Amino acid sequence: MRSKPPASSTAGKHSELALLQQIRSRVAQPPGSGLRLGIGDDCALIRLRPGEELAVTTDLSIAGRHFRLDWHPAESVGHRALARGLSDLAAMGARPIAAFLSLGLPRELTAASGPGNASSWGRAWVTRFYDGLLALAEAHRTPLAGGDLAESPIAVADIVLLGALPRGRALLRSTARPGDMLYVTGSLGGAAEGLAQLARLAASRNEPGRAQPLAIPGKLAPQLTAHLYPQPRIAQGLWLRRRGLAIAAIDLSDGLSTDLAHLCAESAVAAEVDAALLPIHPGANLAQALHGGEDYELLFTARESARIPQSIAGVPITRIGRILRPHRSRPQIALLTPQGKQPLEPRGWEHFS
Amino acid sequence: MRSKPPASSTAGKHSELALLQQIRSRVAQPPGSGLRLGIGDDCALIRLRPGEELAVTTDLSIAGRHFRLDWHPAESVGHRALARGLSDLAAMGARPIAAFLSLGLPRELTAASGPGNASSWGRAWVTRFYDGLLALAEAHRTPLAGGDLAESPIAVADIVLLGALPRGRALLRSTARPGDMLYVTGSLGGAAEGLAQLARLAASRNEPGRAQPLAIPGKLAPQLTAHLYPQPRIAQGLWLRRRGLAIAAIDLSDGLSTDLAHLCAESAVAAEVDAALLPIHPGANLAQALHGGEDYELLFTARESARIPQSIAGVPITRIGRILRPHRSRPQIALLTPQGKQPLEPRGWEHFS
Repeated sequence: MRSKPPASSTAGKHSELALLQQIRSRVAQPPGSGLRLGIGDDCALIRLRPGEELAVTTDLSIAGRHFRLDWHPAESVGHRALARGLSDLAAMGARPIAAFLSLGLPRELTAASGPGNASSWGRAWVTRFYDGLLALAEAHRTPLAGGDLAESPIAVADIVLLGALPRGRALLRSTARPGDMLYVTGSLGGAAEGLAQLARLAASRNEPGRAQPLAIPGKLAPQLTAHLYPQPRIAQGLWLRRRGLAIAAIDLSDGLSTDLAHLCAESAVAAEVDAALLPIHPGANLAQALHGGEDYELLFTARESARIPQSIAGVPITRIGRILRPHRSRPQIALLTPQGKQPLEPRGWEHFS
Repeated sequence: MRSKPPASSTAGKHSELALLQQIRSRVAQPPGSGLRLGIGDDCALIRLRPGEELAVTTDLSIAGRHFRLDWHPAESVGHRALARGLSDLAAMGARPIAAFLSLGLPRELTAASGPGNASSWGRAWVTRFYDGLLALAEAHRTPLAGGDLAESPIAVADIVLLGALPRGRALLRSTARPGDMLYVTGSLGGAAEGLAQLARLAASRNEPGRAQPLAIPGKLAPQLTAHLYPQPRIAQGLWLRRRGLAIAAIDLSDGLSTDLAHLCAESAVAAEVDAALLPIHPGANLAQALHGGEDYELLFTARESARIPQSIAGVPITRIGRILRPHRSRPQIALLTPQGKQPLEPRGWEHFS
């Protein structure tokens, strides 16, 4: 053993370098991307096309809060981290150009395998995390351009997405106008029902409390897929922005009731949602569709006269309500049900709960 | 009490919204910045000037790993998180244009104050964290343009910095050439000695183990200042890049021995450092200057014929060695001492240690 300063270790250094090399070797740079310099320098360098501006979003995923190491397959943790950021770009109608990942991992998930300190689960976990993340990145031609790595008492992944847009053409939350129609892509509540199924799987297994991932059935129920592998609606956001059909948009990360409240607050409008129109995911219920969150569908508004297709790039589009003038005598958001009109309070996912 | 789904709570919601509003109200948008849209939508929107490209860096700071809640004043945690990112921009010679912060905080640091759940330390901690971060951001005209907030078992802060550069003009790690001279800004080892002083303060106090911050003396020793409030060398990086004097550059975040090894590896060169030339911070020792890390000075190379001034924007510049052709018969980095030449192994900060 040679002497070394407190913060250093040869094994640690090899572990980090090996992991960095592994990531670097796996990261593809799609031709035509604006990425000029990726992993390996102090910063990554990126170019925009003439007339473009940049959209930037960051999303923090924390073990025990946004995912559970003993519930979620590593591939799903990587997929979902990236999906959150891509979904924010989709909501602006932006084209993804690069992703950055700051990853903090407990030692057991990063320890170098080898005689004496083998940790096949840990090593496999990191590899599988990147499998999930990079597969989704490749599907959206988004290079992983950099980030940071650190040891951490808990697993944390902060994903940063950069996207490009023609200047002044972003779909915003703040531009909805009274009289607009309200639409969603895909279906709602599937992710929440999938999470409920995951919780039941966990409760029923033989080894309660083991910090090993659940055995997930090979063929996933559609709701489990909706939760573990949500599909960000990049193509739909681009389509709507390019055709100028959407007036305002937001992605459904926190749940319809909460995200619609954000949209209404930023636009200073009210809204009503017709429960009978909601495209509830098969197997999910109304409460999950209204408040469940993590569906990563797009919620957007369009003029009443706009001809919105029934589907965009294979994903159904459904009108679910309308934007109204705000009025102190009525709730900001109303839900129309067979029992009549009732206030729809934001009850979706909230941080710091 | 009204019913609510598991992930939601009215108190939590109010807490997050209050914190978001507080941050939003404090964030200034410097005139002339490229920031078109900041906190409040799915993404921030940023424009570059014609002919510019973008530099992007992310740095993860984790409690217990990069800072300690019971050692570091909250202002210092905020300052240091931002300084790490700004220093990466400085090393490329980039002009900062926006910062993003993903912040995960334990409940006791975010709980809303008020009857029944007052947590004056917690509320004050978040406020003071932003005090430190925003003061440094303002000094460098860098708007905080967005980010994410989440509850977390431990405090984590991922800082993202965006900078702008004329296309193709970034200072890189990979462009050092044999024969170049090696320079550093400022002095080395002060941050490591400051950390050692902080550890001694912690060891000597009356209440060991209390998760309250140390009482730091009102007038800080220079080494404590170097550790708690390092100054990223933005002005020096810009000056060197604009005049075309620096050939290659890296910032000293991990320690001279480690960061010089990164520079040599990326440039496929060797180097020698003269111990007698090192600008060791007053009170620090040679080992701290070589391996200490977190000084956030710039290490750069210049042609032997280049006329490098003795100081740039008030910060001294010191020649400390030279770049050599790599050769298998000698170490990648050699340290010249009165006792002769010896290999300089990278022993600075390494993650996953």
